[in-house]
Amino acid sequence: MESLFRFSALAEKMHPSPIRELFRISQQPGMISFAGGLPDPDTFPVAAFAACADILSRDGRTVLQYGASEGYPPLREAILDMMLGRLGYRPAAGELLITSGSQQAVDLMARALLDPGDVVVLEAPTYPGTLHCLRNAGARFALVPADGDGMQVELLPEVVARAEEATGRRPKLIYTVPDFSNPSGACMGLERRRRLVELARELGIPIFEDDPYGRLRYAGEHLPSLKALVGDAPQVIYASSFSKVLAPGVRVAWTVAAPELIRSMVLMRQGEDLCTSTVTQALVAEYCVRGLLEEHLGLIVATYARKSRAMQAALERHLPPGAARWHRPQGGFFFWLELASGSSRELFERAVAAGVAFVPGRAFYPGAAEQVGGTLSGDHFARLCFTFADETAIDEGCRRLGGVLGGAA
Amino acid sequence: MESLFRFSALAEKMHPSPIRELFRISQQPGMISFAGGLPDPDTFPVAAFAACADILSRDGRTVLQYGASEGYPPLREAILDMMLGRLGYRPAAGELLITSGSQQAVDLMARALLDPGDVVVLEAPTYPGTLHCLRNAGARFALVPADGDGMQVELLPEVVARAEEATGRRPKLIYTVPDFSNPSGACMGLERRRRLVELARELGIPIFEDDPYGRLRYAGEHLPSLKALVGDAPQVIYASSFSKVLAPGVRVAWTVAAPELIRSMVLMRQGEDLCTSTVTQALVAEYCVRGLLEEHLGLIVATYARKSRAMQAALERHLPPGAARWHRPQGGFFFWLELASGSSRELFERAVAAGVAFVPGRAFYPGAAEQVGGTLSGDHFARLCFTFADETAIDEGCRRLGGVLGGAA
Repeated sequence: MESLFRFSALAEKMHPSPIRELFRISQQPGMISFAGGLPDPDTFPVAAFAACADILSRDGRTVLQYGASEGYPPLREAILDMMLGRLGYRPAAGELLITSGSQQAVDLMARALLDPGDVVVLEAPTYPGTLHCLRNAGARFALVPADGDGMQVELLPEVVARAEEATGRRPKLIYTVPDFSNPSGACMGLERRRRLVELARELGIPIFEDDPYGRLRYAGEHLPSLKALVGDAPQVIYASSFSKVLAPGVRVAWTVAAPELIRSMVLMRQGEDLCTSTVTQALVAEYCVRGLLEEHLGLIVATYARKSRAMQAALERHLPPGAARWHRPQGGFFFWLELASGSSRELFERAVAAGVAFVPGRAFYPGAAEQVGGTLSGDHFARLCFTFADETAIDEGCRRLGGVLGGAA
Repeated sequence: MESLFRFSALAEKMHPSPIRELFRISQQPGMISFAGGLPDPDTFPVAAFAACADILSRDGRTVLQYGASEGYPPLREAILDMMLGRLGYRPAAGELLITSGSQQAVDLMARALLDPGDVVVLEAPTYPGTLHCLRNAGARFALVPADGDGMQVELLPEVVARAEEATGRRPKLIYTVPDFSNPSGACMGLERRRRLVELARELGIPIFEDDPYGRLRYAGEHLPSLKALVGDAPQVIYASSFSKVLAPGVRVAWTVAAPELIRSMVLMRQGEDLCTSTVTQALVAEYCVRGLLEEHLGLIVATYARKSRAMQAALERHLPPGAARWHRPQGGFFFWLELASGSSRELFERAVAAGVAFVPGRAFYPGAAEQVGGTLSGDHFARLCFTFADETAIDEGCRRLGGVLGGAA
């Protein structure tokens, strides 16, 4: 029977994310999964967070009512205070928007700025959720390759020029995760940060700095965010989230950007979901106001530092010499393995048969048809998440992976 | 200085909702506001809801983690059970999606079904939030006028034919709030419901039934929802929400529709905000599972029935004879006044000066340029919300309004 529905062109083009399918596979009994980019639930501050629920009695008439699209005032204040440290200045009220996860920040920004066919510059590899949001707005992608030091920013003018030549359009945005990129774990060096801001200014293209992992550094010194380098200049749009430092289930994130862009994102959101749940915003605000977040960050950083060392050691111990290489991440959630030979998708099939799962690199690149001015693919890479599994599982999972890689050699 | 941002065509077309501006005005000191469509915060079950927070300890590892885009399983079960009563059948799991407010349901459905320029059939007047969502997807509007008995469904074939003639496109959707429409308060009669389903089937156009107020009936008998008339046939997409029966601050709503549409909406949402906060879903689930919702509904219905009687009495008492007419609402949140003469926008200015605010009717109609196949406008109507103000304020506000209307006569 023919469908009653006539789907939009966008919906017709969409396919279930291959990552979702991988997650299903990775949940088979006995499987050790390095696939999902999930926080360790053992780090969730369950009791402390639940104790914050007395705000639901104390401020019930406010938290149960509709809230402003811009966010719940006490949470806005807590975030503005917190931003002083990360951005080097306390943003003005008009620069802040609270969103339901930073995924929504990318979505609202994309709807505010992009027309179908517009070009976004991405570092490659990049986060598939961002690809999904931008794709929903009809974007095409120009890729700047990244290495262990992040986006190779010296290539930016050439990538922009090629994209313009191919499409006749100046790219509208540069998207980057400078601190501990998902999937590569790379942290952009200070010189590159300065150069990126300078080049983007010359090119007249705003930068979207996605910073979910910035405070999760396990080694080395914190570097200034791109936003900190430009202050309140409109050039950098900054987004961060409570998902990785507190808990993803709260779905609370925020964006700091020029007031004219924030106003446009607010208008978009009034036609999308009105506001983030005041209930969950109030719980997070209470958690911050009680000083619990700073305390909790210490525990998270210590836990993930240990797990990242465990994965480094396990990879060194179990992977056949020369089978893969990687940069040891200084923060974030991921190892990004470059295979000496073979496709990571094929390796994935054999790894799953041996009881260990990861995400093949291809997921972190746009499809060839979506790329303009050149094509990159990540078929010889694999993303391993070290935050979710416990240390015994990390060792055993790497042992299984090593066995499969050895068998392939 | 020129802006760094090049906004999308959609963003360029957007303007702050006139309703937001009205809300600001209506919050001036001493103002009695019938403007916002807000629940009475005195009805919020503050203590009972806060007591549900022990779920945050009991199930903390789950509720703080990322959740499925389709929703938190215990809440899904509670909603499916609840739907048996309203829809006459218990929907299958694949028919249900939990969203962040029903605004998001309209947004996701619009992104799944509409291409820019597509036509949606609306009853006029209609909810401005829906206009905003549909506009974000590039929709144009064909209007079927409503009266005190809801959409005048016999006009539907003609409206569809005119829209097709004007645009060359068959409308993709019919949007309606059959139970206690926002703003008109009208409840569609049973015969019209049957006829709407029949006509829409013949026309091959799916119906989106938005049902936030269905359980808030203060007089008369409950009528079957459109969805109940067709069961699990794909023809009716049904959406409802906890905003009006529990509290808007939770931002939890749901959609029941054919699995192929739900799948498409889930894909869209994975590029929008991933999932609704598990924290707030868990609190709502706990509230339902403890049987508190059914108990609470009794209180809400009793409170709003009283307030609606108070407004009816106050309007009869204070409005000059013949200055306005209205149908007494049997449920929902609103009175919809048709002025005998003059523009409600002009009346608004004078009413605000006298210390009472409402929403002029024009806000509930698309702009003339967005309408196809004919143009309707609501300039001689006014929406008065009776749920937010207390009974003394309701009387005094209607007295002020009567004074202004009398002065105009």
